[in-house]
Amino acid sequence: MASDPPTFETPALVIDEATALRNIARFQAHCDRTGLKLRPHIKTHKSIRFARAQIAAGAAGITCQKIGEAEVMADAGIDDILITYNIIGAAKLARLRALAGRVKALSVVADSAVVADGLSGAFGVAPRPLTVLVECETGAGRCGVQTPQDAVALGQKIATLPGLRFGGLMTYPPVGDGAGVLDFMRAARAGLEARGIGCPEVSSGGSPDMWRAETGGVLTEYRAGTYIFNDRSLAERGTCAWSDCAAHVAATVVSTPTGTRAIIDAGSKVLTSDLPDLGGFGHVIGHPGMRITGLNEEHGIIRHDPGDRLSVGDRVMIIPNHICVVSNMLDSAWLRREGGKLTALPIDARGRVI
Amino acid sequence: MASDPPTFETPALVIDEATALRNIARFQAHCDRTGLKLRPHIKTHKSIRFARAQIAAGAAGITCQKIGEAEVMADAGIDDILITYNIIGAAKLARLRALAGRVKALSVVADSAVVADGLSGAFGVAPRPLTVLVECETGAGRCGVQTPQDAVALGQKIATLPGLRFGGLMTYPPVGDGAGVLDFMRAARAGLEARGIGCPEVSSGGSPDMWRAETGGVLTEYRAGTYIFNDRSLAERGTCAWSDCAAHVAATVVSTPTGTRAIIDAGSKVLTSDLPDLGGFGHVIGHPGMRITGLNEEHGIIRHDPGDRLSVGDRVMIIPNHICVVSNMLDSAWLRREGGKLTALPIDARGRVI
Repeated sequence: MASDPPTFETPALVIDEATALRNIARFQAHCDRTGLKLRPHIKTHKSIRFARAQIAAGAAGITCQKIGEAEVMADAGIDDILITYNIIGAAKLARLRALAGRVKALSVVADSAVVADGLSGAFGVAPRPLTVLVECETGAGRCGVQTPQDAVALGQKIATLPGLRFGGLMTYPPVGDGAGVLDFMRAARAGLEARGIGCPEVSSGGSPDMWRAETGGVLTEYRAGTYIFNDRSLAERGTCAWSDCAAHVAATVVSTPTGTRAIIDAGSKVLTSDLPDLGGFGHVIGHPGMRITGLNEEHGIIRHDPGDRLSVGDRVMIIPNHICVVSNMLDSAWLRREGGKLTALPIDARGRVI
Repeated sequence: MASDPPTFETPALVIDEATALRNIARFQAHCDRTGLKLRPHIKTHKSIRFARAQIAAGAAGITCQKIGEAEVMADAGIDDILITYNIIGAAKLARLRALAGRVKALSVVADSAVVADGLSGAFGVAPRPLTVLVECETGAGRCGVQTPQDAVALGQKIATLPGLRFGGLMTYPPVGDGAGVLDFMRAARAGLEARGIGCPEVSSGGSPDMWRAETGGVLTEYRAGTYIFNDRSLAERGTCAWSDCAAHVAATVVSTPTGTRAIIDAGSKVLTSDLPDLGGFGHVIGHPGMRITGLNEEHGIIRHDPGDRLSVGDRVMIIPNHICVVSNMLDSAWLRREGGKLTALPIDARGRVI
């Protein structure tokens, strides 16, 4: 992309469509082979266009994290949505009910009786029950019931609550412990079945372990987000090649104060400060020795060898540490289509934090 | 604020107007006492309302970092703007010319001949010259000429270039080295004056050292952004009291998976991953022992003592590490006015990265 004429201003996010579509097809094929339904997480692209592309390629539906994201996607006609979040409070529950009334399938998760009771209160008189999965913590240290026994107890409760339909089990797993996840989910499913409660879905996910994803005789569904674009975090761990990274931040060198430092116009308002443990804030394509050592809001600081200099006005392309947070920073990206043509791509669900 | 009825959904940014206005007045008074013009950086609030409040309190004008921010402020009638950025490339220069034609005073900076030549090329035939200050690096490791001699040489060049007016010197200083900054600026000004070139303005800035700001016989102007709201980074270093922090992130507890962990609905899409060296990602008001130890996009992970528990549905108020990046994450905030009344406050210049 470095040879693009400067037909757009920087900083900007540039998405290579062919690479993104190839990434979609490859992981869909993996899921098809292993018998897993794929339910892509739209948090990575926040784009109606790409959500539709994922469904066209065979995805079972989409995953959202917040109601606001799901509303944007429902407005675009996407009608099978899982919100992997505990929905709390009267205002959000009212929005959830409205959303449920206009899609074919809506499901959410719960990891406590308080959350399940709230959902039941909102859906007890709804025309259709809401599907609720039990979120299980399998080691990632975030939300979720702590043991298979707790999952069974909460599943039993959901199965009896007015307005709810028990949808199965869901986990956001730790990276690299597929066996532990399968053990937890098998034990929870067995406990539920022993009480006569079936598990329609058992959903896991995560792009870092996506190529090792398998049903293990228990998982039915896999949720992944980053796989569509990939990023430095996945390339550095070998999950993808650098050439599989579909999303690049374009930046312009605005200053070269010393022979080993260059300043670019992409700072934390585009690249974000996420994942600093990777060492630096992005991979400068074509300059493997360069390090983005610091960010202010509108400045990125590149340190480089004296022999690998940049000049003021040079354009660099950067693979960001974590693409999901970068796409959220901009109202639109540039989509690079066949033949190099650039078209504006709205980030439809940007900033939907509620 | 913890006693607010839940009249708004979370996560949300809540600005206490009285605290912000008090912060504006206090630092304006400091600048008035020391003989410094105050030129607030609007990056912190990105709000027309607060830019106007700063000017009403006595500010000489405003500082922006990007043309897009300045355009928003100019649209609102703010007519004295310094853009502290090297403006590069035909598209941005054209926007800069258009902007210059509709405000009373516009100035920018340059730290290289390439940047100055570009500005001259765009303004050589403009009806009014563009005011250009030389950006000097006084130790912060970002942009700027490296020595007072280089500042003199670039200032001489700007003074002779068609379409430009030499406006003086500007620096974004390192924290805690006021003496070094003054030495650099005095030497550069003396060199220019020895060549018959006056320095209309010598501009420094930075909220961390704001209470030590003085002219030192050379500075004419001070730029500060964070002072209007303050944040955890300033409170932790003693620049402000916790009670001077005007901007709080409101979040709801959505899960309490263990007796020492709670999950809130504010993650990196609101709190951001900025300044992790502070240890955690924000200060939970009223719970000094709590630590926000991790963020995903929509989850914040709080670790707490077993005796200081939260419940699902509880609302917490958080002072973020770095407020300038947080205000950029949301389309609007809530302004808490006299008597506790909340009104929507648009973040007018959010996301203006160009």
